[in-house]
Amino acid sequence: MPTMQSGAMETEILSPDHDPIHVIDLIRKKRDGQALDAPELKFLVDGAASGAIPLEQLAAWLMAAWLRGLSVDETRALTLAMRDSGERFSPLRLGKKAVDKHSSGGVGDKTSILVAPLAAACGCVVPMISGRALGHTGGTLDKLEAIPGYRTELSLSEFEAVLARCGASIIGQTPELAPADRVLYALRDRTGTVENPGLICASILSKKLAAGLDGLVLDVKTGSGAFLRTYEDSAYLAALMVSTAEAAGTRAVALLTDMDQPLGCAAGNWIELVESVELLRGARPAERPETNFDLRELALILAGWMVHLGGQALTPEAGYTRAEQALMDGSALRIFFEMIEAQGGDASVFDERARFHKPGATQVVEAWRSGYIAEMDTTAVGWAVQRLGAGREKADEPVDPHAGIRFHARRGCCVEAGRPLATLYATTAAKLAEPVALLRRAIHFSEAPPHAGALVSRIFARQTAEEYLRKRMGAGQ
Amino acid sequence: MPTMQSGAMETEILSPDHDPIHVIDLIRKKRDGQALDAPELKFLVDGAASGAIPLEQLAAWLMAAWLRGLSVDETRALTLAMRDSGERFSPLRLGKKAVDKHSSGGVGDKTSILVAPLAAACGCVVPMISGRALGHTGGTLDKLEAIPGYRTELSLSEFEAVLARCGASIIGQTPELAPADRVLYALRDRTGTVENPGLICASILSKKLAAGLDGLVLDVKTGSGAFLRTYEDSAYLAALMVSTAEAAGTRAVALLTDMDQPLGCAAGNWIELVESVELLRGARPAERPETNFDLRELALILAGWMVHLGGQALTPEAGYTRAEQALMDGSALRIFFEMIEAQGGDASVFDERARFHKPGATQVVEAWRSGYIAEMDTTAVGWAVQRLGAGREKADEPVDPHAGIRFHARRGCCVEAGRPLATLYATTAAKLAEPVALLRRAIHFSEAPPHAGALVSRIFARQTAEEYLRKRMGAGQ
Repeated sequence: MPTMQSGAMETEILSPDHDPIHVIDLIRKKRDGQALDAPELKFLVDGAASGAIPLEQLAAWLMAAWLRGLSVDETRALTLAMRDSGERFSPLRLGKKAVDKHSSGGVGDKTSILVAPLAAACGCVVPMISGRALGHTGGTLDKLEAIPGYRTELSLSEFEAVLARCGASIIGQTPELAPADRVLYALRDRTGTVENPGLICASILSKKLAAGLDGLVLDVKTGSGAFLRTYEDSAYLAALMVSTAEAAGTRAVALLTDMDQPLGCAAGNWIELVESVELLRGARPAERPETNFDLRELALILAGWMVHLGGQALTPEAGYTRAEQALMDGSALRIFFEMIEAQGGDASVFDERARFHKPGATQVVEAWRSGYIAEMDTTAVGWAVQRLGAGREKADEPVDPHAGIRFHARRGCCVEAGRPLATLYATTAAKLAEPVALLRRAIHFSEAPPHAGALVSRIFARQTAEEYLRKRMGAGQ
Repeated sequence: MPTMQSGAMETEILSPDHDPIHVIDLIRKKRDGQALDAPELKFLVDGAASGAIPLEQLAAWLMAAWLRGLSVDETRALTLAMRDSGERFSPLRLGKKAVDKHSSGGVGDKTSILVAPLAAACGCVVPMISGRALGHTGGTLDKLEAIPGYRTELSLSEFEAVLARCGASIIGQTPELAPADRVLYALRDRTGTVENPGLICASILSKKLAAGLDGLVLDVKTGSGAFLRTYEDSAYLAALMVSTAEAAGTRAVALLTDMDQPLGCAAGNWIELVESVELLRGARPAERPETNFDLRELALILAGWMVHLGGQALTPEAGYTRAEQALMDGSALRIFFEMIEAQGGDASVFDERARFHKPGATQVVEAWRSGYIAEMDTTAVGWAVQRLGAGREKADEPVDPHAGIRFHARRGCCVEAGRPLATLYATTAAKLAEPVALLRRAIHFSEAPPHAGALVSRIFARQTAEEYLRKRMGAGQ
C-alpha cells in the first residue's frame, strides 16, 4: 500500500507566524520515521501532563512511535521529559543511598516485598513506588492491600517519614511524581500502544528517576509468562533501560530472569504475602521445599545488587551474602513489619494467617497422568489467577485478596497421577471452572526431565548495555 | 527498532465474556498489519458517528491505517460503512440521472461552477455537495459565498427543490449525509492522517455515494500544485476511487489532470466567479485569450464525461460537444443564474462586477527578466493566494472574497522584462509582501520554451482501474 508524504512546504510557510512547535508537525515527523528532538518531546510530554494537547493528538503520536520506533536518544529525552513533568522526590536528606528494584511483571513475583526490607536491613533506603495487577500479571500494591489497614496512598512527606523510620516504604504512584506518565500510560492502554520498548522504558524510568534513586535494579522477565514475547525483545528493553538510567545519572543493572513458570509456590494476593513472610522468617515450605527455592534465590540476587549499587557491598556477591544474613537473622522481617505498621497496617494478621484466609471456593487440581512437568504456559497460568478474582482485566477493577493458586509441584518435578498439582482459591465457586480449564491446558507432561533454564540468564550493566545497543544499531535497528 | 507483539492469548481469553468486537482489538489488528473486515470497519465508523468510540482510539486506528495502509477491500468496506452512517439522498424521483464531479483540489480550479450548470443544461441532474478552501487549495463554497445572499447550507428538501427547479444545486456538507466523515475528517486533519489513499477515497466517496449518484467524474490533480506528491500516488488514488465507486454501483471515471500551474487566469473567490461567468457567457479574456484555454477545455471534458455517464451522450466526446453547445447558447449560464437565485443569491452582482470587486490592496508583479515562463510551483502559488486572505490555514477561519491573484501570463508564455505577470489583491496592504515574495520564488524563467504537459494525462474507467490495482498489488502493494 503506498503512503503519501505531506509536503514540507506547508510547515515551512506556516512556521514563521506561529509558535516554534506545532503538535501536528511532531506527529507527522514521527509518522514519517524521523526522530523528535528533546525540546519537541518535552513539548508533547508537558502538553500531556497539563492537558493542553488533546488525547487524540497524543494517541496519533503514540501509534506513530509504536510503529516507527523510538531511537535510543529519543527514549532518553522522553524519559527525562516525563521525569521532569512533575515534582522530584529527594531521598538525599535521609543520609543513605536510595535504591529500588523494578520488575517487568510476572506471575507469583513477590520479590518486591522481599527485597525492600532486605536492602533496607543492609543499610540502604528503599523508596519503592509500585504498581497494581493488570492482565495476567500481579501487582505489589494489591498484595500489600490484603493487609488490613495498609495504606498505599501516602503524601510525599508521609513517604519520607516512613523511609526515615523504617528504611523502606512501598506506596502507589503519586499525583506529584511524573504526572505525564499517568496520562500517557492510561492512553497507551486504550490505544494499543503499550508494548513498545522506548515507551515502556520511559514510563518505568520516569517514575523511578523522579523518586531520586542512586541505584536501580531491573528484573526483566523472559519465557512463557513474560510480558515481552521474545528473548531478544526482553534483552533490548533491559539494555535500553540500563543505558537510559545511567545517562540520567542513576546507577542501573538489569537481570534477565526466568518466567517459564510462576515464581515461588503461590500466586494471589494474600497467599503471596504469606509466602513472603514465611521466607523472611527463614522458613521453607514443609511439603516440597524446592517449590520456592527460585523465589528465595532471585530475591537474594536482586537484593544483593541493590546493596551493591547502594554502596553497602563491594560486589553483588557480597551484597547477596549480606542480604542472606538479613534474612536469616530476622532483621528484614522486622523492617517489613515496622513498615506495615508505619503505613497503618496490622501485621498481627500474619500470626493468624490460616484463619484470615477466607477464599469463597476452593478446588484441588490433581495430576491427570504421571510424568515430569515439562512446560507451564505461565501467561495462561496468570490469566487463571486473574480469572479466579485475584487480578484485573481493566484498571480500577477491584481484586479479591483471597483468590489465587497455590502450587504443589513445579517445572521439572516428577509427579504420579492423582497427586495434587495446585489448589485454586476463587471468589465464588462459579469462578473456578474457567481457571481450572486454563491451568490444565497450561501444564504439559513429559517422560523425560525437561531442560532446566537458568534463573538469571543475562546481566546488563552500563558497559554491556551500551555494547548491546551499539551492536543492535549496527545490525540496522 | 524492534516492535513487540501483544499476545493473541489475551484477546482470545477476553473475548467470550464480552461483546464480539472490541475497539482495542481492532486497533491492534490494524497496527499489526492485518486487514479489518466489513463488520469491524462498520463498528468503528458507527462508533465515530455516534460518539461511542473516544476520539483517541479512533486516532490510534487512523494512524495505524495510515502507516500500514488499507487494502482495496478495506477501502470498499470503509467507504460503504461511512456512506451508511447517516441518511441517503435519493435523486431518483427527479426523473433524471444524477451525476457529479469531484476534484482532488487545486489552485484556480473553478470547474465545479462550470460543469454543474453545463451537465444540467444537457439533461442531467447535478446534486453537488462541495467543500471549502483549506491550505493551498481553494473551495467551491467560498467562491459561491462571494455572491451576496447565496446560501450553501440547505436542508435536504430545499436541496431537492432547487434540483427539481434548476437541475443543479451546489451546497455544503449536510449533517444528515455521511456524518461519520465529519468526525473522521476533522480528526485526520488534527492527527496527521490526511494523506492516505484509502482514507481519502472513503472520505470523498462516502459523501458522494450518500448523495445517490448514478455517475461520478473524478478529477485527480497531478503536478506541482497537486495534493499528492507523485504521479503514481495520484494514479493509485484515481484507480482506487473508480474501483470503489463502481463496486458500490455508481458508474465512475477518473481523469488525471495537470496542476503544474493554476487553472485559468484567476485564483481567489470573487475573481474566479467572474472568470466562470465570463466563460459561460462565451467570452474569452480580451488580453491574452490563451490564459484560460485550459480551464474551458477541462470544464468541457469533465462535463462531457458527466453527460455521458448520465446517459445523455453515447460517448464522452459526444458529451463534450453537447456541453460546448450549452456553453455557447447560454443555457448553462441561465441555469447557473437560476441556481444562484434559487439559493438566495443576487446574480445581478455580475452586471456590476468591476464595482463589486473591492480588494483592500493591490500590487502588480512584473517580469524581472525576459524569457519563457518555464515552471510555476503551484503549491507555493496556492499558499500565496491563501496568504492574501482568500483561503484558510485551519478549518472555520473566515475568507476574504476579494483577495486573490489574476495571472496575465502562464507557463510557456514568452514575456519581456517589465511586463505584468500577475496582479495580487489582498485584504490589507500588509498582507501583500509575503505572497509577492512567494510568487516570485514560485516562478522560474528559461531561454527555451518549456515542455508542455498534457491537460489530461490518463483516464481510468472501471476496467482500467481494476487492471491497474491488480498490477500494483502484484508488485507487492
